[in-house]
Amino acid sequence: MGIIIQKFGGTSLSTPDQRERVCKAIQRERHKGNKVVVVVSAMGRVEDPYATDTLIRLVKEDNLNPNRRELDMLMSCGEIISGVVLTNKLQSQGEKAVFLNGLQAGIKTSADHGDARIVAIETSAVKRYLDQDYVVVVAGFQGFSEDGEITTLGRGGSDVTASALGVALGAEVIDIYTDVEGIMTADPRIVKNARLLDAVTYNEICQLAREGAKVIHPRAVEIAMECNIPLRVRSTFSDGTGTLVGSHGEFNGKSIRIKRDNLITGITQMPDITQIRVDIQGESDLPLRVFKAMALAEISVDFITVNREVVIFTVLQEVAERAQEILKNLGVSVQAEPDCAKVAIVGAAITGIPGVMSKVVEALTLNGITILQSGDSYTNIWCLVKRNQMEQAVKALHDKFDLGNQEGGDF
Amino acid sequence: MGIIIQKFGGTSLSTPDQRERVCKAIQRERHKGNKVVVVVSAMGRVEDPYATDTLIRLVKEDNLNPNRRELDMLMSCGEIISGVVLTNKLQSQGEKAVFLNGLQAGIKTSADHGDARIVAIETSAVKRYLDQDYVVVVAGFQGFSEDGEITTLGRGGSDVTASALGVALGAEVIDIYTDVEGIMTADPRIVKNARLLDAVTYNEICQLAREGAKVIHPRAVEIAMECNIPLRVRSTFSDGTGTLVGSHGEFNGKSIRIKRDNLITGITQMPDITQIRVDIQGESDLPLRVFKAMALAEISVDFITVNREVVIFTVLQEVAERAQEILKNLGVSVQAEPDCAKVAIVGAAITGIPGVMSKVVEALTLNGITILQSGDSYTNIWCLVKRNQMEQAVKALHDKFDLGNQEGGDF
Repeated sequence: MGIIIQKFGGTSLSTPDQRERVCKAIQRERHKGNKVVVVVSAMGRVEDPYATDTLIRLVKEDNLNPNRRELDMLMSCGEIISGVVLTNKLQSQGEKAVFLNGLQAGIKTSADHGDARIVAIETSAVKRYLDQDYVVVVAGFQGFSEDGEITTLGRGGSDVTASALGVALGAEVIDIYTDVEGIMTADPRIVKNARLLDAVTYNEICQLAREGAKVIHPRAVEIAMECNIPLRVRSTFSDGTGTLVGSHGEFNGKSIRIKRDNLITGITQMPDITQIRVDIQGESDLPLRVFKAMALAEISVDFITVNREVVIFTVLQEVAERAQEILKNLGVSVQAEPDCAKVAIVGAAITGIPGVMSKVVEALTLNGITILQSGDSYTNIWCLVKRNQMEQAVKALHDKFDLGNQEGGDF
Repeated sequence: MGIIIQKFGGTSLSTPDQRERVCKAIQRERHKGNKVVVVVSAMGRVEDPYATDTLIRLVKEDNLNPNRRELDMLMSCGEIISGVVLTNKLQSQGEKAVFLNGLQAGIKTSADHGDARIVAIETSAVKRYLDQDYVVVVAGFQGFSEDGEITTLGRGGSDVTASALGVALGAEVIDIYTDVEGIMTADPRIVKNARLLDAVTYNEICQLAREGAKVIHPRAVEIAMECNIPLRVRSTFSDGTGTLVGSHGEFNGKSIRIKRDNLITGITQMPDITQIRVDIQGESDLPLRVFKAMALAEISVDFITVNREVVIFTVLQEVAERAQEILKNLGVSVQAEPDCAKVAIVGAAITGIPGVMSKVVEALTLNGITILQSGDSYTNIWCLVKRNQMEQAVKALHDKFDLGNQEGGDF
């Protein structure tokens, strides 16, 4: 029997009942004879006192730009609290369990506070406890730099911790437990007949995550992919086996080969986007000046269209005002379209297939949805729509490509 | 100019307004040109989410006897959170400030989780930051063992951290900031004309603390006393200079010599005590069996009276039921007097003075207060009374010895 990594998110850890289910999931793997390493996120959502966002709010009251070193020390407490609470519950049920913070678990990172990268894992402590038959609970999201400073990995960092530990320990599988059944063809809160996908490739799930499906951190997938360790995205609250994520081909007796290479994996959405439009008015160096100014202000731009008349791009709604001010200071004419959303269809080699784009346009326009902008890459096609038409657009695309059907994407 | 240690308790750190006053107190010392090391407790009282008791409650829901190693990891978060919040506030006001947890501050302790003793302080990191003119904020109450495990020092441990840092850094003074003005002749919530003491000796404050005055940890006083570093107990919420604690003799230009050696320092009280009485009934080995059984159960006993007929002692109310059960299992006849309180008069060489005891008895009996038990040591006289007569007893003693008078103890 091998080593299993089990990662539990904040919503799986916030109440005693939920933690009881987490303990059952851990014990299920133990009873199969597996060695188990558990990676935890901070408990709960924004409103909970030990959630990462609540901890950040504590200092932002005094200081909108808190020092990142101290902020990392503060945020690391979220995972320590949830880790101790879970370890204690396991111990109360007679399990031999131990908790390690990022330093004790040997998670070495770069020194970029708030957005550190794992550079190595010193696994000796984890291995020593596994050898003594402990369930080893590890604080996700945190590590330490060469100088011994506490660091955090940024949003979704616990997924990254889980994958990196899986690779470092040569785990059989990395289980990402969450509050949904697995990877769906669309957000089930929007699309009633959204379907659970049994298996997807690393690339597909990365695409879905990048396009807004909040199910796993793309970096966690990349790390697992490098060593071909399978991931499972599954629910803490059911006995379902979730979605297996791996490479093409056989794996553990279960085929995860995609039936058709041109299958559409799913539909994603990303709200709270503002589209910005700058008239060039003959100033040929204007696009460069615009993007340099955005880069200097550390504002990410996306969906860029440049032609002789106009520069169009999008920014996250939360930085839209700041972006417009910066552009006005450049003396350019700026128009903004707030309250937009991006919807995308994601799949393998999607743009190679004739007629896909026309189906997308047909699905949206027949439903009275205005396409403000669109684009495509090798694996996806996206459209910018108004936020208040986002749900309708997702449903229209899911229906058009018949993704609720077990046979999958039809076009 | 030298190094000043400033220790702030939880009630000084729980709201933004309070933290503003804390910042002012720090800046006041900085403006005098002092180097400042700040030691913080966890924020707030029992009901606050980041208070030590609230953190403990998180795990006790699942497990009444949580593993002490993990409990220490959990509790250490309380001081990290308050330390980061305070450091951030200082930084927001333009102060150069840095926060160090127990490990980073070099607080080496024994491995006794939950009740560790500081064995050494590796001051290089603190000194390096002080040399660079930082305000160094240090998490109180926590340290690390030789094995690198996180430890805590037990209740009041932040006072101990402050004193130990004061000694290790050769500080000029250790300021213990709290929510009272300083050391009073009695609890001002009980005695309206209780008087602030300008200066007391290390021994006197130790006695007061041991007899129930919750103003400073006795171990913190002992540590400061060993190196003769003065302490000041003062309020975060006023500009008063509080009570100076030192040795007899001149100090910093201010005499703290006690005017009369027989001065009574103050009156203390300690509620929630149960008196237990066991009939010996001719079994001469019974006292030994009783105390052995209590020791085995880790129940502290106090106020012991043994004679040929009876064994009398007191225990804290919270363990009284357990103590009685254990005694009943020994097959002895047990009587319990619940809801008692201890009141004490504390002073230098008090028992050497004729007539003190008679004044105590007179003060209490004339006020209709029953003395259930009494005793004395070199520096104090105590009486056990019913809890509902405690306040009255404290007032009666304070009046009788005229402690509200600036000239102090009259007898």
